[in-house]
Amino acid sequence: MTAEADRRGALSPAQARAMFRAGSWQGGTRGFCLGYLQCGIVMLPPQEAQDFLLFCTRNPQALPLLDVIRGGDVSAGRLAPEADLRFDLPRYHVYRNGELCDDPLDVARHWRDDLVTFVLGCSLTFDAAMLANEIPYRQLEETGQPTMYLTGIDCEPAGAFAARLVVSMRPMLPRHAIRAIQVTSRYPRTHGAPVHFGDPAAIGIADIDRPDIGSPVSIRPGEVPVFWACIATIWDAARRSRPSLFISHAPGCMFITDRRDESVAVL
Amino acid sequence: MTAEADRRGALSPAQARAMFRAGSWQGGTRGFCLGYLQCGIVMLPPQEAQDFLLFCTRNPQALPLLDVIRGGDVSAGRLAPEADLRFDLPRYHVYRNGELCDDPLDVARHWRDDLVTFVLGCSLTFDAAMLANEIPYRQLEETGQPTMYLTGIDCEPAGAFAARLVVSMRPMLPRHAIRAIQVTSRYPRTHGAPVHFGDPAAIGIADIDRPDIGSPVSIRPGEVPVFWACIATIWDAARRSRPSLFISHAPGCMFITDRRDESVAVL
Repeated sequence: MTAEADRRGALSPAQARAMFRAGSWQGGTRGFCLGYLQCGIVMLPPQEAQDFLLFCTRNPQALPLLDVIRGGDVSAGRLAPEADLRFDLPRYHVYRNGELCDDPLDVARHWRDDLVTFVLGCSLTFDAAMLANEIPYRQLEETGQPTMYLTGIDCEPAGAFAARLVVSMRPMLPRHAIRAIQVTSRYPRTHGAPVHFGDPAAIGIADIDRPDIGSPVSIRPGEVPVFWACIATIWDAARRSRPSLFISHAPGCMFITDRRDESVAVL
Repeated sequence: MTAEADRRGALSPAQARAMFRAGSWQGGTRGFCLGYLQCGIVMLPPQEAQDFLLFCTRNPQALPLLDVIRGGDVSAGRLAPEADLRFDLPRYHVYRNGELCDDPLDVARHWRDDLVTFVLGCSLTFDAAMLANEIPYRQLEETGQPTMYLTGIDCEPAGAFAARLVVSMRPMLPRHAIRAIQVTSRYPRTHGAPVHFGDPAAIGIADIDRPDIGSPVSIRPGEVPVFWACIATIWDAARRSRPSLFISHAPGCMFITDRRDESVAVL
């Protein structure tokens, strides 16, 4: 790691959020505040929020709900009481009626006092546990980008919300896959165990070399692709379900909480 | 299940052991005393026992040691204090200098007062947990026989003892394999998680349709073979290491203890 990367990893969550609030970091949060829980967020008007709450509850592997912050509260409650959810992520995505219409550095101009914020677990949490178990993460050696696919698996719908499951993929040897299943099973609130390994077509992926999001990654002889449910499912839900307003983190630009990763491990 | 199978499953361990002692059941113990821990046993003279203890310790996935009973004690200590290890299994295998020389219903005529008995976990324990999780066990629908292979993986040697790892195989869909990895991880003392899945050649299995022990099983489209370390590794150790005397349970003819399966689960 470079000294710069070391420095990012050693930042406190409050320091990192202050950097993002000041606009002095506008990219992904991987590698920041090592050991601290990073989350995705979704902000919705109250009518749509009711359906989305049910949608998360019915699809806990893709949309693992960590908290719901109501009534226009801008702090992140017990996850980060000092934070301001409108400013403290590096970048946001704003959808209106199912169309991406803005990717701002803060959401001041979209904010409404009735918005409900959903805080969702993301896979950065188990990345750290997998690295600690010496499970290689090829993407970090190649493009630095994740490799994600829209599958043919329908999420359980709820009210206005529907989506097809989006998965992230990592190639690995079977013995690493077995260990990765054990390791990620500890974290059901950050997607948990994989949903599939092996044949991509079995979950509706037509071409493993053409991910729908992120960059392809090489799969070496003896390796299998292993697929985890992914928070990127929220954007398929936004496009398909067309809520009047849908604000989320931008891909990879997560909300860094004051809680430790291990606080969401079940074992 | 037939009424007869129901009756076997409902027997107490003491009742089953009495049946075996009387010679009125001379076959495998699968399906007997459901919920009770079944084990493999290995009896060795004291000199060889020292090396074997170290061999088990170094290869806990293949040879998960549950107890060691010393000095010619014929009871199974805390696992089954009323049992007599010389008579209470349906059938035994006796090796002398690496050759199978007898498969008696009891070991009275081979017994010596200095023999040390090793009690080892076996996969019947996690079978029950897998059935409870609705993970299909194809062998039960087809031949009723397990499917085992001698791999190219060397166990860690210890003194006179060496072996190649023997694995049992079950074909299943990836989603069942993921669940099976979670379920069997709870039972490290009965072989735990798989050692491999997928390509048989990667662990030195030349022909998946020709198991070294037991019967072949069909692998359907979309399924992968999943391989667990197997107690049958002891017979490769007996043949390769040639102890002067080596007594074990006969394949599938296990020692039924008074302990519950769940007593060896770590979660």
